[in-house]
Parts: sequence; structure tokens; C-alpha cells
Amino acid sequence: MIEISLRVAQHIENNPDVEVINLGSGDPTHPVPEVVASRMADFARGLSKLEGYRGYGPSQGTVALREAIAETLYKHVGVKYTEVFVSDGSQCDITRLQLLMGPKVTVAVQDTTYPAFIEASVLLGQTGDLEDNKYEKIVYMKCGPEENFFPDLSTTPRTDIICFCSPSNPTGHTATRQQLEDLVNFAKGNGSIIIFDAAYATYVTDDSPRSIFEIPGAREGVRYIINYYKENAKILAEVFQSLGIKAHGGEHVPYLWVHFPGSDSWDIFAEILAKTHVMTTPGIGFGPGGQEFVRLSAMGQRDATIEGARRLKTFFLEKKN
Amino acid sequence: MIEISLRVAQHIENNPDVEVINLGSGDPTHPVPEVVASRMADFARGLSKLEGYRGYGPSQGTVALREAIAETLYKHVGVKYTEVFVSDGSQCDITRLQLLMGPKVTVAVQDTTYPAFIEASVLLGQTGDLEDNKYEKIVYMKCGPEENFFPDLSTTPRTDIICFCSPSNPTGHTATRQQLEDLVNFAKGNGSIIIFDAAYATYVTDDSPRSIFEIPGAREGVRYIINYYKENAKILAEVFQSLGIKAHGGEHVPYLWVHFPGSDSWDIFAEILAKTHVMTTPGIGFGPGGQEFVRLSAMGQRDATIEGARRLKTFFLEKKN
Repeated sequence: MIEISLRVAQHIENNPDVEVINLGSGDPTHPVPEVVASRMADFARGLSKLEGYRGYGPSQGTVALREAIAETLYKHVGVKYTEVFVSDGSQCDITRLQLLMGPKVTVAVQDTTYPAFIEASVLLGQTGDLEDNKYEKIVYMKCGPEENFFPDLSTTPRTDIICFCSPSNPTGHTATRQQLEDLVNFAKGNGSIIIFDAAYATYVTDDSPRSIFEIPGAREGVRYIINYYKENAKILAEVFQSLGIKAHGGEHVPYLWVHFPGSDSWDIFAEILAKTHVMTTPGIGFGPGGQEFVRLSAMGQRDATIEGARRLKTFFLEKKN
Repeated sequence: MIEISLRVAQHIENNPDVEVINLGSGDPTHPVPEVVASRMADFARGLSKLEGYRGYGPSQGTVALREAIAETLYKHVGVKYTEVFVSDGSQCDITRLQLLMGPKVTVAVQDTTYPAFIEASVLLGQTGDLEDNKYEKIVYMKCGPEENFFPDLSTTPRTDIICFCSPSNPTGHTATRQQLEDLVNFAKGNGSIIIFDAAYATYVTDDSPRSIFEIPGAREGVRYIINYYKENAKILAEVFQSLGIKAHGGEHVPYLWVHFPGSDSWDIFAEILAKTHVMTTPGIGFGPGGQEFVRLSAMGQRDATIEGARRLKTFFLEKKN
């Protein structure tokens, strides 16, 4: 995805007076709740006092934090604190999990999906050659609009590992209970391990209890930020709806997955950037199945999102006529 | 090293009333300078405001920080900020560097040395069987007291990578300019890559400029903490000197590397823990050459260090008589 940054930098150099709007990277822009920031600040300030100083933390995270995570996020699925590992982030973990599995395992990924799932395998040179945006030794499970964003398991070959992201980045598809049951049965039958990435789980709005919101303060805070991004997504979605362009996602993830049938995702990216100074993410970065798509992030500030939506609407209206 | 934690936990269970002193793990205990803590606190608090909020940082670290690191720490060696990468810690980096080199490279390490140097290779199953505390496919460069803690390069076979730590954890040996020149010439001649770990570089006290101390505030702060740990090391070193037991290091690293010729490092560890309730680190954890050693950390608080020194002195005096 470094290519995107380089192209945007070049665009800014060529157009020093324009204000580029970032609907590309999923980079949050909204402040964290005061209660979280002030607790972090108190901890940091305490580090200069003997009683507040902490050296190495326990490698799995402090027990109190792990208990709180298990209790508030995973109680409904019976996860104990001993099963919780606090790391420096899920992206790194995805890569490291791959590493732990060793270099000889076979891997299936959704096409399209988050690129980190195969990065360790690629680094280790275990994925073979890249041809037509596909690594030779990776099984790509097609999850496009034709498949309703869920793989056809009857034609999916057995692999040691199945990487599965739901709600999906970038498509926004959220697997149903029935679909996940099918996936688990498929994995069990094959003796496969599922690596399940639920980074946007708190975005899902259904009747299941989401106990993170039961933390005093954090409840309103997190809910507020999620709603903020959800409204951004709605603003962007309305643009494409009014234009008759299919935009998936936005409901359970802070992204839109916009479909331009017959197009090349880098061409769409380049055209939008050149004409509207809006940065998006070419779909091909998420797998060969992303060729006709761009991803729009809803994690900008409201005014930038509205301005981005306005520019996109103007551009596509002119293009249409 | 998880075995150490388990044994200490067991010891505490067996001796609920004793106060265990940790001279084992190199876990700093001394507060960070106020100027550092308060800047971190300000940043954390700012995250709850739109103007203070930051999303993803640049993956290499912010340019301002990288420039400051290059300018203050590496100016004397001509490193530019573009060569500085800010990560989540050098231990993780050591493992990841190994990963980047791919699974087929051959690796030489100092014996004894910091275990992280071969962890990625071990994880990937590239190191062969473990026999006599040595992995089959790792080249162990003996760096014991007999070698004056520097490898005999004339008998060291060629490897793709040479991992080298100076000042050394755990032995405390600091390679001389001549030794490092020899090492570089050796690597150049063999077309080897040196991974050089200088985690304790700021502990080195010689005439070379150490420009970290030129940062306002940090200068006194860092110097103060280092001196604090250095005095701890001196307190511990005096115990062994008075007993006629050889303790290496302590001068340029916050560790002592204590030699018990003919002993087994787990036995020494267990005996010290059982008799004095002082936690140390068995030398074998740093390589097969560490069999007759234990490592003592000087990163405790002063009172714990003094008490630990007193217990060790009493114990070894009694043992001697």
C-alpha cells in the first residue's frame, strides 16, 4: 500500500494548493473518550514516581486488564482471562500467528480480505510466485458480490489454516450465524485451524449483548465514536446510492466497498485522486477479487467527509452526463 | 526463561512469609525522569481532544522523533534520520530481523548471549535439534572467560548472519575498537551480515561523546538512572570480590555475570533461591557457555539491592566456612 502514499505525495506536489481528503486509509480521526485519555495520562505521569513506576509488564498483559477484557467483551462466549493475550495490536498478531504455524502450512484467505493474513508467508517465501495478483500457493476463496461475499465451501480445497475476517475489511460483509456454522463444520471436517479476525465486532448492531458498553464512561464514549463513523459512512453511502453506484458495507464496518464493474481499481483510484483530490484505496490491495472496487474510509472528521462526499458526487454526476 | 518464573512462584508458595529479592530479570525499577513522564502524559491527555488526537503514526516513526534520535544518539557515526526506525522494542526487532532474512540463512551467535537472537529461527524449525543446550544448525562462538569474552574468529566458520551484542548481556564484556574491527573484517571477508545489538551503549563510560546527555533534562535524568544502577552493580560486585568469587560485568552493563566453576547454573540458581530467597538468572539460558554462571541484575531499588547483597554475602560466607 506504499504505492498509494507515493502517488498521493506526487499528487500533492503537482497540486500544492488543493486540500486532499483522505477516504483511503482506515486511520481514525476522532478523539478517544476523556476517561480513557486521562487514565493513560495519569499512568504516564506516575512513571516518574517510585510508586507509579512499572518496568517490564507481564508478557500476556496484566491480570486485571485481561480479566476486564474477558468479563466485558467475551463473557457471552465463555472466554476466560487466561485465554486473553494483550499485544501491541491485531495486525502484528495476525502476522505472528502465521509465523507460529511454521513455514510449511497451507493457507486459505477470503478474496478479498485484509492483506496482513498472508504477509508472514510472503516474507518467508512460502507463497510461491505472484501472478495475476495471486500467490501461487495461497488458496483464494472468492467472496465477491456474486457469492454474496461468502465463500463457496463446496469448491474450496482443504488447507491447514483458514483466515476469516467478519465483519469484513474491506467488503463490510458480516457473516450470518448459519454461514459461520458452515465454516466451522468445514474446518472441523478438514482438521483446519480458523484464524478469525473480528476487529469490527463492536460495530455490529444486533441484539447480542456488547458488554464493552457496560464500562462506565467507555460505554457512551465508544458508542459515540462508532455512531460518528457510522454517520460518516451513511453520508458517503448516500452519494453512491443517488448515483446508482453499488456501495457495499458501511453498516457494520467504517468502510464502503464501492463497485465499478469492468474497471481497474488503480485506474479508479487515480482518476478520483486527479479529479477530486480525494484519496481512496484501490481494491486490488485486498486481493485479486478487489480489481473492480475501491474502498472508502468513514474514519475522517465530519467536515472532511461531507466535503469528500460533495466532491465525489459532483465528479461522478459530471462523468455520468 | 518461563521455568524461572515457575520455580520462583513455587518457592513463594513454599515460603509465604519471606520477601523474595529479584536479582534475576533485568527489569528496571527506577522511575523515569519527570520531563519524559510529563510529556508522555500531556500527549496521552491530548488524545481526547481533536487537536491532540493522532491516529496511525507513520510506520517508521514520526520524522521529528527520528531526526532527534539521529541527531542526539548517532550523529558521531553519521547515521541519518532516514536510517532510523522507531519500533516497539529491540527484542521484538531482533526476532523480526531474523524473520526478514528468511528461513534458509545460517546464523552465528556469541556463546553466551541474549536468547532472542535465535528465537525466530527456532520458531521456524530451522535450527535443528537441541542437544547439550546447543541447536544443531546454529554456530556458537565461544566467548567465555578463557576467550576474554571475544570469539576466536580464526576457528569460526562462515555464516550468513553474525549476531553480536556489545556491551554484552549477560557477560558485561565490551568489545574493544580493535576487536570490532576484526569482527567487521571477518564479516566482510565472508560476505556475512552483522546484527549488532548495543542496548547498553549509553552505559559505556569512555571519552566518546554520548550526545543523548545533551537533551535538556534527559541528560541529567538518564545519567542519574545509569549511575544509580551502576552503584547497585558495585554493591553486588563487592560481595563477590570480598568472597573471592569472580563476577564479570557490572561496569558497562547493569548486570553481573558470576562464575561458579564446575557448577550447574540451575543448581546455583536453585540453591541461592532456596537459601536466600534471592532470584537470579541461570546462565544456561544465555547459551551452553553459561553453564557455570548466574546473572545478577543491578536494576533493583537500592534497599532491595543492599538486602540482596547482604543475604548473598551471609550465605556464601557460611558456605565457605
